[in-house]
Amino acid sequence: MSDIDTDTPEQLDDVSALPGYSETKQAHLKRLRRIEGQVRGIARMVEQDQYCIDVLTQVSAATKALQAVALGLLDEHLSHCVVDAVAAGGDERDTKLREASDAIARLVRS
Amino acid sequence: MSDIDTDTPEQLDDVSALPGYSETKQAHLKRLRRIEGQVRGIARMVEQDQYCIDVLTQVSAATKALQAVALGLLDEHLSHCVVDAVAAGGDERDTKLREASDAIARLVRS
Amino acid sequence: MSDIDTDTPEQLDDVSALPGYSETKQAHLKRLRRIEGQVRGIARMVEQDQYCIDVLTQVSAATKALQAVALGLLDEHLSHCVVDAVAAGGDERDTKLREASDAIARLVRS
Amino acid sequence: MSDIDTDTPEQLDDVSALPGYSETKQAHLKRLRRIEGQVRGIARMVEQDQYCIDVLTQVSAATKALQAVALGLLDEHLSHCVVDAVAAGGDERDTKLREASDAIARLVRS
Repeated sequence: MSDIDTDTPEQLDDVSALPGYSETKQAHLKRLRRIEGQVRGIARMVEQDQYCIDVLTQVSAATKALQAVALGLLDEHLSHCVVDAVAAGGDERDTKLREASDAIARLVRS
Repeated sequence: MSDIDTDTPEQLDDVSALPGYSETKQAHLKRLRRIEGQVRGIARMVEQDQYCIDVLTQVSAATKALQAVALGLLDEHLSHCVVDAVAAGGDERDTKLREASDAIARLVRS
Repeated sequence: MSDIDTDTPEQLDDVSALPGYSETKQAHLKRLRRIEGQVRGIARMVEQDQYCIDVLTQVSAATKALQAVALGLLDEHLSHCVVDAVAAGGDERDTKLREASDAIARLVRS
Repeated sequence: MSDIDTDTPEQLDDVSALPGYSETKQAHLKRLRRIEGQVRGIARMVEQDQYCIDVLTQVSAATKALQAVALGLLDEHLSHCVVDAVAAGGDERDTKLREASDAIARLVRS
């Protein structure tokens, strides 16, 4: 939408403000675009009245792919944001640990 | 049941060839397009370096939405395709039951 | 073990009243007793202050084992009870299909 | 790190060697004993040829209860063991973070 989209996190002055996944951002984006394509493909299968079981197989594959993205993001979140918050200590640490646990619970239950 | 049923995609002669979800096809398509938008939104969040936990919340929501689509498709598959196959009996029945069990297992494990 | 085993519900003459898993009952019992032992083992690990991650590994294994029992029971339920209900038709069929779908949903979400 | 590592939790003078869940150990044990009873109850249901769907409902409940134990253990593991490891830094930190991520992945996939 913007005419200047620099897309480059490296130019940010405040490195600490970057999310934990910034180093692997391109890999996550690639995976997410592939999943977006998978979901579009599933809609096309439904549109074309393809067989239920074949549609379900693709839904399971897309679900697994989304979980893999989540596990990757979480791993990096622990290694960066949570590690930084533990170093900072106090409320910052407690808040980040609570958030991480809640995110893991949502993931396990989804 | 109705003598004029124009609900079918492209005037199919062989109604039995339609998948189990054909009556609710539009609802499934609507849900899938929403999920496609959710996944695109997640990619945009990553693109914009948004906070890991917020990205994870959206990934969990998209995963749950995909599961809901799968459960809907499966429910209709049992009520239509599997019911028909049981009526047909023999190999047709056994194949369809095996397929359904395998699809359920993939779903539970994904 | 006992020479008189009156543990069975109501001296069934009617084989059709047996659950779908009756042919594989012994296999299910064996698996369930192993899972019971796994859970007891996990409690013992906690009792002995064993390392969290090792405890978690055993919890994941027990969860997977329970899921495998569920998938086995469900598979047989579809092949027997649901098949019989479809043959019976009417309300019986609709009720059994609804029940099966609900059980699958609980399984996928647990 | 210690020159004498007997590996036996009972002899520990060093509180830091206790697992992350030590403060809530009794609560975990109580939950685990309840789950053990649930699994034994499921075996009894199968023994008595109870209805498949009722058995499945109990299996889903036991699975959810196991997941809740896992999430509790993981939460405390992050707040104690991982926090300590981050303070220690170096290999200790990296190992503990890797272990935690792997345990989360096993949990999400089980």
